[in-house]
Amino acid sequence: MSTDPADLSATEAARRIDAGSLHPRDLLEACLDRIAAREDTVRAFAHLDPALARAALARPRDGLLAGLPVGVKDVLDTADQPSEYGSPIWRGHQPRADSFAVAATRGAGGIILGKTVTTEFATRHPGPTTNPHNPAHTPGGSSSGSAAGVAAGFFPLAFGTQTGGSVLRPAAFCGIAGFKPSFGLIHRAGLKVMSESLDTIGVFGRGVADCALLAQAVTGLDLGDPQRATGAAPRLAVCIGPGGDKLAPETLALLEDVATACARAGARIERITLPSAVVAAQEAHPAVMNGEILQALAWERMTHPADISAELTENMNWAAALPAPALAEGRAAFAAGRAAMRELMARYDAILTPSAPGEAPQGLGWTGDSICNALWTAMHGPCISIPAGHGPAGLPMGVQLVGLPGQDRALLGWAGWLEGTLGR
Amino acid sequence: MSTDPADLSATEAARRIDAGSLHPRDLLEACLDRIAAREDTVRAFAHLDPALARAALARPRDGLLAGLPVGVKDVLDTADQPSEYGSPIWRGHQPRADSFAVAATRGAGGIILGKTVTTEFATRHPGPTTNPHNPAHTPGGSSSGSAAGVAAGFFPLAFGTQTGGSVLRPAAFCGIAGFKPSFGLIHRAGLKVMSESLDTIGVFGRGVADCALLAQAVTGLDLGDPQRATGAAPRLAVCIGPGGDKLAPETLALLEDVATACARAGARIERITLPSAVVAAQEAHPAVMNGEILQALAWERMTHPADISAELTENMNWAAALPAPALAEGRAAFAAGRAAMRELMARYDAILTPSAPGEAPQGLGWTGDSICNALWTAMHGPCISIPAGHGPAGLPMGVQLVGLPGQDRALLGWAGWLEGTLGR
Repeated sequence: MSTDPADLSATEAARRIDAGSLHPRDLLEACLDRIAAREDTVRAFAHLDPALARAALARPRDGLLAGLPVGVKDVLDTADQPSEYGSPIWRGHQPRADSFAVAATRGAGGIILGKTVTTEFATRHPGPTTNPHNPAHTPGGSSSGSAAGVAAGFFPLAFGTQTGGSVLRPAAFCGIAGFKPSFGLIHRAGLKVMSESLDTIGVFGRGVADCALLAQAVTGLDLGDPQRATGAAPRLAVCIGPGGDKLAPETLALLEDVATACARAGARIERITLPSAVVAAQEAHPAVMNGEILQALAWERMTHPADISAELTENMNWAAALPAPALAEGRAAFAAGRAAMRELMARYDAILTPSAPGEAPQGLGWTGDSICNALWTAMHGPCISIPAGHGPAGLPMGVQLVGLPGQDRALLGWAGWLEGTLGR
Repeated sequence: MSTDPADLSATEAARRIDAGSLHPRDLLEACLDRIAAREDTVRAFAHLDPALARAALARPRDGLLAGLPVGVKDVLDTADQPSEYGSPIWRGHQPRADSFAVAATRGAGGIILGKTVTTEFATRHPGPTTNPHNPAHTPGGSSSGSAAGVAAGFFPLAFGTQTGGSVLRPAAFCGIAGFKPSFGLIHRAGLKVMSESLDTIGVFGRGVADCALLAQAVTGLDLGDPQRATGAAPRLAVCIGPGGDKLAPETLALLEDVATACARAGARIERITLPSAVVAAQEAHPAVMNGEILQALAWERMTHPADISAELTENMNWAAALPAPALAEGRAAFAAGRAAMRELMARYDAILTPSAPGEAPQGLGWTGDSICNALWTAMHGPCISIPAGHGPAGLPMGVQLVGLPGQDRALLGWAGWLEGTLGR
């Protein structure tokens, strides 16, 4: 086959490496060629050092990721590359150690190709990255460089993090798969943690199986093979989510189309509205997120206030003005919401809901709305975005499946089923 | 009064500073004098720089901790002092930023006096610290230097962390108060996190009110005034805990004496045994703790295996040999245990249980058993150890109160009541 190795899915590249028909060196050089051709426009990297990646190839390691290049969001520490967290306060910062995600990737044979652009501390203030499908549009955030880089063929796999919608939304905007596992599945050691109750490390790939591969490689868990159909079809709860009137018409139409396709493929489809305890959890998200970020950045706020963006300063000031019990009340609302989710989900295998309100917005000043994702992050269950079509501007759109905490393997299986149903 | 300022409680020192009868400089110098006299024996500090502390005094800040010296366990980052995590792998490490706990302490006017000795990564391999009551005995761990330093009068307040029993046990062994708040009450930004499900930042002081003061100062929460009696007496569930046959006779006798004193003071006392779901959570603690530590130290284990102690290597190897689902199963057992605790505690204000199996063991090679604490850490509720007597070797002993998550203020109030009842 004449496919450029930079366009292969991670699972296909791994198969070819294993079979001896693709040399890791050729894969890496294809990625570096692609980067040389497109990085000026995409601007996915906060730090790139091809020599380091080539040197890593010279020390081959066995493992599920043997020879696969991986992009790492620049909120995850790397012992051999700077880690600047998207903030001028941390310019030139060189950690002594790898984060868990990075060390485990290396342990499984993966090649850390570079650090990818994050918004400021993985919050709202955007970086320079553009959408690989149209540079006039945002790639989404906060995991901007990781999502754009996978979509552009810079690396087949990448890590992101999600506090609101920072994995799912950029995956949808960039036309790739993005998987936020259950809260806590990937240890946050060496992550610049913002919200302790919400921050979750996630993964990007070209499809569901790629996401499963990276999550499995770093955790050691058996997450199944999403490409192997079980014959069964899921019971799906179709839900517009808390997005409501923020959803574009094409988003609602896409959700209906996908639901119809699922029903045709044998899925049991029911429309649901969210229980009040779950809605209350959604409403508590800003207080918990910003209240915890306010604490996480206590040092930065005391010592470098002028180097914090206006957006982030405003959000922290908002949190600082809340009554002190708001944080604990918000966490209690999350806990009550999770209990209500367990009851609700007794009758379904997954929730089917939009990944984002619409296509990627025009401009680079705003990475888009996390309204379709923040609730599910707070609910701590696995979520995955799957490419499902294109919008009126010709940009990719995704749909999201949401499961209960701990049901990562099952959700990946249903996501593989959905991917097959949608004909990818 | 002629009390040496180094022997004042934090609340009393704060009152005097506020009234103008104690100058922060005199308090700091009294602490430094005490350190000069006793540090050779106690060995509480991993790093001490009197000039830094004096310089901080010269930039006075208002706040609840104005002028109070604070010791910081050396797993919490400090921007102006090394942070070595009790490991030769991190020798000389200088973080760029303060941890949240440290930044918030400075923000409230506290003086970071130094970094205190931690066991290796807050696990089992001990540091050099001795028990201030008898240098032939351990001060407990892993927050060894923080507990010993408060007991020795080196600083009136200190931070520790608890994954098993690393705040409560050293507090009991050193004859001071140690408070582990609800999980998540103090943000872990800048903590060298080991077990994400368990690690909790706690505080040490001479008494309950000191612990409340420090926790309140850094979180901004109103934790009440434990020294103001409400007139009411608590409903106490007396429980030997999971310690069972590991408890020394004097520990059982102390628990009975304290229970009797509480009943005499009006408390309703009931003896309980732990529900099976709570016992199962206790049994899951080692798998979760060591499984998560194994992930947290992935980089250290890959790059510096020879610099990890034999104990820690053994525990990580044990975790690495567990079936992959053990971690998720353990976390599920914790969640089920917490639900059972909520039911159980509907009838009680707090659990009264030993802080440790007995007095501080002889020797410095073992910091003691966390059997009286690990379960409660996993249950995520607040726990506090209060000095309650002495054992046959003349060393201090404590009793522990345990509450439900979020009930920090109430538990501190009952702890203040108990402190008063015990005549301190």
